[in-house]
Amino acid sequence: MDRRSFLKNAGLGAGAAAAATTLAAPAIAQSTTEMVIVSTWPRDFPGLGTSAQRLARRIGELTEGRINVQYFAAGERVGAFDSFDEVASGNAQAYIGVDYYWKGKHPAWAYFGAVPFGLTYPEMDAWIKFGGGQELWDELADDYGLKNFAAGNTGVQMGGWFNKEIETVDDLKGLKMRIPGLGGDVMAKLGVSPVSLPGGQIYENLVSGAVDATEWVGPYNDYFMKFYEAAKYYYYPGMHEPGSQLSMGINKSWWSTLSPADQGIIEALCMMENSMQMAETNAKNGEYLDRLINEHGVELRRFNEEIYDAFGEASEEVFEETIQHSDLAARVHESFVKARSEIGRWMLLADTGYTTQRNRVLGIEV
Amino acid sequence: MDRRSFLKNAGLGAGAAAAATTLAAPAIAQSTTEMVIVSTWPRDFPGLGTSAQRLARRIGELTEGRINVQYFAAGERVGAFDSFDEVASGNAQAYIGVDYYWKGKHPAWAYFGAVPFGLTYPEMDAWIKFGGGQELWDELADDYGLKNFAAGNTGVQMGGWFNKEIETVDDLKGLKMRIPGLGGDVMAKLGVSPVSLPGGQIYENLVSGAVDATEWVGPYNDYFMKFYEAAKYYYYPGMHEPGSQLSMGINKSWWSTLSPADQGIIEALCMMENSMQMAETNAKNGEYLDRLINEHGVELRRFNEEIYDAFGEASEEVFEETIQHSDLAARVHESFVKARSEIGRWMLLADTGYTTQRNRVLGIEV
Repeated sequence: MDRRSFLKNAGLGAGAAAAATTLAAPAIAQSTTEMVIVSTWPRDFPGLGTSAQRLARRIGELTEGRINVQYFAAGERVGAFDSFDEVASGNAQAYIGVDYYWKGKHPAWAYFGAVPFGLTYPEMDAWIKFGGGQELWDELADDYGLKNFAAGNTGVQMGGWFNKEIETVDDLKGLKMRIPGLGGDVMAKLGVSPVSLPGGQIYENLVSGAVDATEWVGPYNDYFMKFYEAAKYYYYPGMHEPGSQLSMGINKSWWSTLSPADQGIIEALCMMENSMQMAETNAKNGEYLDRLINEHGVELRRFNEEIYDAFGEASEEVFEETIQHSDLAARVHESFVKARSEIGRWMLLADTGYTTQRNRVLGIEV
Repeated sequence: MDRRSFLKNAGLGAGAAAAATTLAAPAIAQSTTEMVIVSTWPRDFPGLGTSAQRLARRIGELTEGRINVQYFAAGERVGAFDSFDEVASGNAQAYIGVDYYWKGKHPAWAYFGAVPFGLTYPEMDAWIKFGGGQELWDELADDYGLKNFAAGNTGVQMGGWFNKEIETVDDLKGLKMRIPGLGGDVMAKLGVSPVSLPGGQIYENLVSGAVDATEWVGPYNDYFMKFYEAAKYYYYPGMHEPGSQLSMGINKSWWSTLSPADQGIIEALCMMENSMQMAETNAKNGEYLDRLINEHGVELRRFNEEIYDAFGEASEEVFEETIQHSDLAARVHESFVKARSEIGRWMLLADTGYTTQRNRVLGIEV
């Protein structure tokens, strides 16, 4: 018996035992099911790990033990990037991560995490929940035996950490940069060598010089990564992940054994965590940006329009390749583009239109 | 026995009976409690009523009948603006509405709905959940025997419907306008006579000429109100409600009788609905704005900078008066201003910084 099946069977055994011993107690009359959650985040990692752990804990609490959750951070049971297979195979019941990690399996996965020139958090929520996004996500996930929910969002990410200034597209050429998903493919079009590394391995690669640059999330999350020890220039805004949606991917066979109420509790908690994580990130990024600048001499830089135009052209090329993959990839892309255009136009008139006037009157500026 | 106490006692009686008859059934071992929800929205009203009804229904479903919800739309049990007293008195267990309706009881209530020059949806979420907002809201609500949660958001509202163009501040003078909350106080500083009317009474007042202008929400919600029959000019962006947060206000004595799991389910469902309503509104506003323009000849207009500067000055005067009210009002205002400045600065760099570049490259414009 290998470690995985041992853990799995131990879990089932514990569940059966719990169900047997509580049948006589009127307060808990329903049987217990085990839910092993594997995560792509290091344990206790601020903002990401803490969010995933909060979600896992709340599922146990709100189902009053009907679902017995065991949470494993990255590397505690399987490596971060093995989470998907662990759940699709039925070895675990759910993963928490970002779905662009699985773009090698099918490029459409990227759209449900983040794509270059993609959607911000409110736009993403609108597309997923009321713009046809969830239905396409369900269609994709079903092919892998999964049912996925949005379960976090890190908002507009910073463009990344560089050890030199990026003034022209030529400055990007030859850089080895940690940047996963389709954002990495865009960078490749501009001469960058993109690398995908889980969070726990970036710092050592940056300090050793194995990579020259990296993106991660934003000031709050990045602060704890200490990237400023090896790269001083901190660029915004990131084109590659404008509203990275985290997700809980659930083994669909297991999901179908749950009562409608327990399914509903998991769905509600995922949606709660989706907004909780976004709120935490937005509340803390300003403070941590100041700390990076004042405590560690980080230099804030804005990508100029020439760079952004190049990002835009390269993104279109990447999308052209993506939609060639399959009918489903093309339909996901089409739905995404419609949402970006229609919801994006409204947001321009609403959130951007308002904050532009408000910030001008009040003198709020970068 | 009046109708209210009859309903209340009938509810308790039904709950006790249900508890007694289900004790022998192992599947439902916990007792039932009645939850009467009174809403400020008309039944089935798109976006607002439907959101409140979805939340009420889900509480019953996810607690598997432990909480037996009875939902009353505006006017079905009490009038919209009597919802607060109905819950504070214990006649009902919860209301769904917007807390600026209660600013006559204490001006700090307005901050937990929307205030002029206030926070957008992501900013509001960040302030409430991780910027000290919920703690101050709890302190205020506790004085009325309530526990409140965010339970919806309509996003940046349109500036309103006018029967003439508003080119200068003088054009506002003498108008009778339906605009509640502190936004109405701001308009009063500029010579407008503000009126507070619940949603179900606006249309008749606008058509009869009892009011000259009105704001309501945004294109999706406003479409169904048919204001275009009496006012063709539709202004944006609204300064008065940039991210109107809806809330569920719960009778605290009743709340304290619930199990931690049932409290957690209500909290999670409120947060789910908070983002669901925002997603629905953002997904539909663009389409309905086009329909208003194309089907009904509505003319879209933008408030110019002169008007916005005047809104800004008047808002500061209104806030000055508000903070004189009490220590609590002053502390709520101070916390709000800190959030607006710090989170607003981050959002300027993030969401606005990104969408400005993205929309420029892609040609997305109003």
